[in-house]
Amino acid sequence: MRTVYVIGIGSGDPDHLTLQAVAALKRVDVVFVIDKGEVKEDLTALRTGILDRHLEPGSYRVVEAADPERDRRAGAGEPGRSERYTAAVVDWQDRRGSLYASMLAELADGETGAFLVWGDPSLYDGTLRLLEGVEGIEVVSYPGISSVQALAAAHRLILNRVGRPVLITTGRRIAAGLPADVDDVVVMLDGGTAFAQLPDDEVADVEVYWGAYVGSPDELLVSGPVLEVRDEIVRLRAEARERKGWIMDTYLLRRHPGDR
Amino acid sequence: MRTVYVIGIGSGDPDHLTLQAVAALKRVDVVFVIDKGEVKEDLTALRTGILDRHLEPGSYRVVEAADPERDRRAGAGEPGRSERYTAAVVDWQDRRGSLYASMLAELADGETGAFLVWGDPSLYDGTLRLLEGVEGIEVVSYPGISSVQALAAAHRLILNRVGRPVLITTGRRIAAGLPADVDDVVVMLDGGTAFAQLPDDEVADVEVYWGAYVGSPDELLVSGPVLEVRDEIVRLRAEARERKGWIMDTYLLRRHPGDR
Ligand SMILES: C[S@@+](CC[C@H](N)C(=O)[O-])C[C@H]1O[C@@H](n2cnc3c(N)ncnc32)[C@H](O)[C@@H]1O
Ligand SMILES: C[S@@+](CC[C@H](N)C(=O)[O-])C[C@H]1O[C@@H](n2cnc3c(N)ncnc32)[C@H](O)[C@@H]1O
Repeated sequence: MRTVYVIGIGSGDPDHLTLQAVAALKRVDVVFVIDKGEVKEDLTALRTGILDRHLEPGSYRVVEAADPERDRRAGAGEPGRSERYTAAVVDWQDRRGSLYASMLAELADGETGAFLVWGDPSLYDGTLRLLEGVEGIEVVSYPGISSVQALAAAHRLILNRVGRPVLITTGRRIAAGLPADVDDVVVMLDGGTAFAQLPDDEVADVEVYWGAYVGSPDELLVSGPVLEVRDEIVRLRAEARERKGWIMDTYLLRRHPGDR
Repeated sequence: MRTVYVIGIGSGDPDHLTLQAVAALKRVDVVFVIDKGEVKEDLTALRTGILDRHLEPGSYRVVEAADPERDRRAGAGEPGRSERYTAAVVDWQDRRGSLYASMLAELADGETGAFLVWGDPSLYDGTLRLLEGVEGIEVVSYPGISSVQALAAAHRLILNRVGRPVLITTGRRIAAGLPADVDDVVVMLDGGTAFAQLPDDEVADVEVYWGAYVGSPDELLVSGPVLEVRDEIVRLRAEARERKGWIMDTYLLRRHPGDR
């Protein structure tokens, strides 16, 4: 039997790591690293920093592989969850699946390996799904601070209003319009700034709490009525993306901000 | 100037604590403890355990107060977020507000106090809201592992499907029916087992991933098609509640479980 940990490492601050995750890391024989290309160098640096800080050098092996390319244009511009978009993601996940299987072959019987996952493994991350199909391994998931929580903490936000729901969704879906029945919406995976393109009357009574690189030294935060701050966010985002070569941002859209 | 930390301590496992939260605790002069009555003894024990483990005895003061009573029957049985329910919660939060203000008076100028909050401060917790109005304090929020993430980790779940949203809502709302446009719904604050009362045809294609006392030694987990496991969950929940005197449970409802 082989064991594979999926460890949430938090969203940019190495101190997001839980005591449980640190203890799990110390039991690991092999760390699996998926290299996402040079634009994500900072993310790799965070991961390396965590390993160097908590593990003895030489006490673990590292197995690296390059992430398969994904067709990011498939379904672009189509509203909602288009068939082509889903097919492209599923195809990419299948190719990642073969990759994971070959990486896992490096794990000997009785050994424990770990995938270090950005944020929390339960939110817009495919690692657990990819491991589901693999025979002969026991999977353990360790929760981590998600970017949603990092965003909320940075803005000192409570995501929900009293007794009311919160929706976590994607930029692609928000581009098609705000949901009618939920007034608090967290948006992730937004390749642009979908909220800033919504018609004025749809966002007239909406506040945005935006954050990029949240939890890291590069953290950017802006909040306010959408109509007042959207241009600033669009500008800041473009500048930051240009400067660093990549960006990860998340935001809460809050309708009727006066409600408790 | 006085500083108040709101520290998420995770959802039942003392090792959910982040390194950031441990470091913050060590800077604290006063720990504010809201006593929620004897049924929540275990929760208080967790908190005390955390303080004993990470802080030097005598290095901090504890300021305790009893939580004001809340009218839990207001709006009971009314679907959705009834006016009476909201009014009762808001009234209770106002009374808690006065309580917090008097507790904070124990904090001297230049000192740092902390409220230790169950799970994550951004999810169905009123502490940040109560501190918002208080003059002369700087509030810092530290994220913690929420019960939603603890539930997901225990079941090795990814909450969302590819490119699709997740709704976090309450038992009270689910009692009024499943939302039409979201297929993954996390339910918290369910005083009964609202999902088990939904009509058969509404849950015919729905799976439930249920957990009580998740992360603690008393953890209970059940998952499967709602029609097959709902009776078992209702029975287990009633037994556990009877045995321990209180229960905290959360669950994911997943429609069309075959989708990726
Ligand atoms: C593939 S998802 C992974 C999410 C991750 N599992 C989590 O729990 O946060 C990547 C998305 O997470 C968000 N994100 C991740 N880290 C972030 C950060 N430090 N600041 C802002 N957003 C972040 C962005 O919306 C980004 O598009
Ligand atoms: C007042 S809310 C607080 C939520 C908390 N801030 C969090 O982040 O999880 C209490 C609700 O959280 C859920 N909950 C908290 N701890 C839990 C646990 N250990 N297992 C299952 N559900 C839990 C239950 O749904 C409960 O009704």
